Amino acid sequence: MATDPNCLFCKIVAGKIPSMKLYESEKTYAFLDIGPLSDGHALVIPKHHGAKLHEIPDDYLAELLPVAKKLAIATGSDQYNILQNNGRLAHQLVDHVHVHMIPKPDEKQGLTVGWPATQPAKEDLQKVFENIKTKLEKL
Amino acid sequence: MATDPNCLFCKIVAGKIPSMKLYESEKTYAFLDIGPLSDGHALVIPKHHGAKLHEIPDDYLAELLPVAKKLAIATGSDQYNILQNNGRLAHQLVDHVHVHMIPKPDEKQGLTVGWPATQPAKEDLQKVFENIKTKLEKL
Repeated sequence: MATDPNCLFCKIVAGKIPSMKLYESEKTYAFLDIGPLSDGHALVIPKHHGAKLHEIPDDYLAELLPVAKKLAIATGSDQYNILQNNGRLAHQLVDHVHVHMIPKPDEKQGLTVGWPATQPAKEDLQKVFENIKTKLEKL
Repeated sequence: MATDPNCLFCKIVAGKIPSMKLYESEKTYAFLDIGPLSDGHALVIPKHHGAKLHEIPDDYLAELLPVAKKLAIATGSDQYNILQNNGRLAHQLVDHVHVHMIPKPDEKQGLTVGWPATQPAKEDLQKVFENIKTKLEKL
């Protein structure tokens, strides 16, 4: 398992920095966000260090949503967002993969989602589709 | 496996409504979003029908992020958001769990994230923490 001694979240997993730990297994760690968007906002992280989703082994990724589900149930949230950001442009601040479970109790609290949807022409969508398909087949 | 004959995404999985299918396994289906926030915006869904994350069995949830990772790699995205919304307030429009993989190539395209962070007093955080912990122990 990769870890980075300079990473904030690796330090939290190692117990070198305190956290409000909600869950821990061999591969996964979850704790309360101390700058929450709403009550119960929590983070689920793989113990394997990696900045972005595509750097994390599948067996570590596999546990993240089942743990986020436990947190959603435990907070009693009926409405909530699951968010995982990759890169500064995408609003990532700590370079260790983390899945946010953010309760959305009302319009003011919780995540705000901006949705600049586009309506591409069918042939443009088809090009994007074929390009991704070709690359997927080589993975 | 639960399915709902009236659900748009169950119809897509069943091939009754066409989609630009990128990936399929026994438990998972992925396709291009036709109203994308950016080129390559795709959806990963469990074949098991359920409106919200906490209604989906863990073995179906476990596959979603590994498939989203494949899509991120295939689109060549270095910056991207993974988002899964639960409930109308949380911006969910189709009541079958779906994980968005949304490339963020620049500030204008892709997801816009609003982050109304709070700074609760330590004792308030502690109360929230203990409440969730107690409920987690009963799950």
